[in-house]
Amino acid sequence: MRVFKRISQIRKTLQRYKKRSRIIGFVPTMGYLHKGHLSLIKLARKKSQVLVVSIFVNPTQFGPKEDYHRYPRDLNRDLKLLKEEGVDIVFYPSVKEMYPEGYKTYVEVRELSQVMCGISRPTHFCGVTTVVLKLFNIIEPDLAVFGRKDFQQAVIIKRMVKDLNLPIRILTGPIIREPDGLAMSSRNIYLNKIERQRATILFKSLKWAKESYKRGNPDPKKIIRGIKQKIKQHRGRIDYVVAVDKNNLQPVNFLRKGTLIALAVYFGKTRLIDNIIL
Amino acid sequence: MRVFKRISQIRKTLQRYKKRSRIIGFVPTMGYLHKGHLSLIKLARKKSQVLVVSIFVNPTQFGPKEDYHRYPRDLNRDLKLLKEEGVDIVFYPSVKEMYPEGYKTYVEVRELSQVMCGISRPTHFCGVTTVVLKLFNIIEPDLAVFGRKDFQQAVIIKRMVKDLNLPIRILTGPIIREPDGLAMSSRNIYLNKIERQRATILFKSLKWAKESYKRGNPDPKKIIRGIKQKIKQHRGRIDYVVAVDKNNLQPVNFLRKGTLIALAVYFGKTRLIDNIIL
Repeated sequence: MRVFKRISQIRKTLQRYKKRSRIIGFVPTMGYLHKGHLSLIKLARKKSQVLVVSIFVNPTQFGPKEDYHRYPRDLNRDLKLLKEEGVDIVFYPSVKEMYPEGYKTYVEVRELSQVMCGISRPTHFCGVTTVVLKLFNIIEPDLAVFGRKDFQQAVIIKRMVKDLNLPIRILTGPIIREPDGLAMSSRNIYLNKIERQRATILFKSLKWAKESYKRGNPDPKKIIRGIKQKIKQHRGRIDYVVAVDKNNLQPVNFLRKGTLIALAVYFGKTRLIDNIIL
Repeated sequence: MRVFKRISQIRKTLQRYKKRSRIIGFVPTMGYLHKGHLSLIKLARKKSQVLVVSIFVNPTQFGPKEDYHRYPRDLNRDLKLLKEEGVDIVFYPSVKEMYPEGYKTYVEVRELSQVMCGISRPTHFCGVTTVVLKLFNIIEPDLAVFGRKDFQQAVIIKRMVKDLNLPIRILTGPIIREPDGLAMSSRNIYLNKIERQRATILFKSLKWAKESYKRGNPDPKKIIRGIKQKIKQHRGRIDYVVAVDKNNLQPVNFLRKGTLIALAVYFGKTRLIDNIIL
């Protein structure tokens, strides 16, 4: 496994693989890897001949009052895990390498980036699409894998790839959960013991919603009300709970197969997201 | 010379050249070609093995009250000219091919796109960078050529290419002028006989500015005032006249070698741009 910090160097190496028409797979991450990341990497490993993983805590996707500086980092542990997964190339650039002085270019997927997480994090997805486009241009992968926990992010990336005519296949991997149902997230370490226990209500309430839909309840309003009630009972502070079309992220009037129920909730100062597809 | 309207088809053809490591050159145009375009095409022809020219009147770079619908078009004449220049491939997509239903992604080069032409045309450069990025992704050229009449555009494109890590070399070609000095532009046909005569003051006033600088005048304010005065005497309605650093487009306090003097002026309803480098 080779680790590159420089754009020019990873490019040179990847050029050699491209000349030989190798299928290049790519999984972008912010590091502090958990089993969710590793499942995406396993999926990419199966589909590609050369597997590239990036580790970059991207400052442009954090708001001014968000957790950029305290976001957890552990490079050595990450590298050990990536080696075990058979990753070929790790890209670990500095902030200066990605955003040198005088940097001015940003990509935006309108509408899709202004709903759900985009309301409380208005600059977040612009930072995500910008860094992902840069990484795509540096690595020029044939395919890239994103997690379905960040469902909105995956929808936005797919839209960007289609709109900008990038010759890249986007795959998504399922949400990986702790034994008690909490969706894996690097941010889970922020939770204290009580918050960690309370946070299990997120997946429980989503499962309840799916059950309720299956028992014949077609009304998104009732479902959303039910979810909110459960979360509040467990001291969660709700950012949003929505029932939307999984392709265009627009609110639905009736629940149906394929409806996305998604939420963002604070426990203490920690903001968690989760979702389920009916 | 082959003409493609479909992204999938031009891509398939270009893939074959790429496999053989041919140097692909690209000149994006909005058609209605004049000697300015042809000079860029000649430059690209010299530097590349496969030469692609696009003809696409890009709706996203026109404001709601601008001349998108009446922008001049003459495909047959353009194709004849391109054939004479030895162009290999013409890309002539429809608006629907470039911006299908549900299109949502835009690229923006901040600051640089908000000065000079960006003040009276606030959405213009976002449309330009978006379509150029799309064309770059479709054609994947090794080099692309832009004209220095649209100096600000060239600066913005160079910044975008650098910021987004695109492996494309950007070249620029000089302004080509009519015998009386008017910069060639597809929009010159909008001018009536009197306006056409008056418009010659633009280059005359830029030449005067350069002479004045050479005679020892270092004051941008005096120069700008002088240019404005001359243009007004010829019934030009001034959008802007600036003296800026040619790299960052910021106003300079003292004229020096490399300062860009640029202007946009209306004659009747026709907006013309021109510039000179000291």
